[in-house]
Amino acid sequence: MNDKIGTYRFATEPFHTDFSGRLTLGVLGNHLLNCASLHAQERGFGMGTVNEESYTWVLSRLAIEMEEMPRQNEVFRIDTWVEGVYRLFTDRNYAILDNDGRPLGYARSVWAMINMHTRKPVDLLGINGGSITDYVCEHPCPIAKPSRIKVHGGEEAATLRARYSDIDLNGHVNSIRYIEHILDLFPLDLYRRRRIRRFEMAYVAESYYDDTLSFLCQQPEAGEETYSVEVRKNGTETVCRAQVEFGQPCSHPDCESSAPGQAS
Amino acid sequence: MNDKIGTYRFATEPFHTDFSGRLTLGVLGNHLLNCASLHAQERGFGMGTVNEESYTWVLSRLAIEMEEMPRQNEVFRIDTWVEGVYRLFTDRNYAILDNDGRPLGYARSVWAMINMHTRKPVDLLGINGGSITDYVCEHPCPIAKPSRIKVHGGEEAATLRARYSDIDLNGHVNSIRYIEHILDLFPLDLYRRRRIRRFEMAYVAESYYDDTLSFLCQQPEAGEETYSVEVRKNGTETVCRAQVEFGQPCSHPDCESSAPGQAS
Repeated sequence: MNDKIGTYRFATEPFHTDFSGRLTLGVLGNHLLNCASLHAQERGFGMGTVNEESYTWVLSRLAIEMEEMPRQNEVFRIDTWVEGVYRLFTDRNYAILDNDGRPLGYARSVWAMINMHTRKPVDLLGINGGSITDYVCEHPCPIAKPSRIKVHGGEEAATLRARYSDIDLNGHVNSIRYIEHILDLFPLDLYRRRRIRRFEMAYVAESYYDDTLSFLCQQPEAGEETYSVEVRKNGTETVCRAQVEFGQPCSHPDCESSAPGQAS
Repeated sequence: MNDKIGTYRFATEPFHTDFSGRLTLGVLGNHLLNCASLHAQERGFGMGTVNEESYTWVLSRLAIEMEEMPRQNEVFRIDTWVEGVYRLFTDRNYAILDNDGRPLGYARSVWAMINMHTRKPVDLLGINGGSITDYVCEHPCPIAKPSRIKVHGGEEAATLRARYSDIDLNGHVNSIRYIEHILDLFPLDLYRRRRIRRFEMAYVAESYYDDTLSFLCQQPEAGEETYSVEVRKNGTETVCRAQVEFGQPCSHPDCESSAPGQAS
């Protein structure tokens, strides 16, 4: 095993699944960010270690592409590694594998490091004598890099105020909560007919408690099932952009039995 | 160790804390329900086992009382045991303990079992020859039993539609999501000044995708900090009631350092 790759094991808990009994994208996103944090920390580049020096990691982009989501009680693992380090950004990739090591999907993330006082980006190659490059690792991640998400027009699909549950330790709206709010824009019926094949986020600015968040959703072109969403705070400023691609549901014969909901 | 008590270990993950760096009540609630499920399953009374016989557990009441919430990265454990079994209900208690076995808080829950087809309650003493009573265990749980929550009047503090993220495998709004929505009724400033000492839920009816949920909140009497909340669906029918008691923040000297938020 390549020792530059961190491996973390999980089980899909009952309250971490959606109506179809599959792990939710929000919980998977949490796991990915946790794995990043653990893997960096184990190598002296974690939030904790870095915080003492007044630096912190900031997530810039996240793309998740899943062939299949783990089912309730299913054991799976996440492998994570650093693909590249540049002056202001580092690319961290992930493979999500089932208990037999079969890939269920992959993810790519882009991170910057900022000085917590000045909020300015830090030169990654200047930290710890550039030793972060020692962890760069070649390993296949067969999904497209995060794209440049553009949202043209689009209608306001929802508006909400950032509440207590949205706010994380840094006083910002939690990166994963945006994903959950965006997933809530789509009707349950769409999730019954399709599954999310690829989900991409570009984080542009922070939002805070009591900010009004509006969600502009651009409908897909005819014959496509890819939605673009822009989240704005207080009417004008872009907070993040997302691209949500729905695909055919899993064709595995077992999946017929995962149809939603018992009679109730 | 009393073998009728199930013990489960957890660590407080970074994305499971609120702005103050403490475990959220929602995540703790999920853990409690998971422990109940595991403990029952290990003894042949789990949802899975019972589901094959067309029965399922339904949470009726939940009361959580915490002296202190686990902090980020803190390891803690949950002990759970059955306090009593009656014809239609069973009482399951919990202790939440830190890594040294010091109690952080306790919880009490009341469960019924229903037939999934008829939705009618099942006589617990008639299942598996009444063997569920073998697991009854005397163990201290020094918090008050769930009370009869009454909400008089109260103003409509929020209204929302049940969305994708609210719905669980049974097609209902997830029991824990109500807790999260209720916590979001209170301003962040209240959480800065106080912490939740006791939280109680009484589950009355199920709600479903696209139901309109309204949250009626009764303000506390002068000098008190206990709020009563009633959740109604589609204007009239009561779905659940909650009682939220805020108390003094933790007086432990370490807690001064857990003040919310770095400058940002």
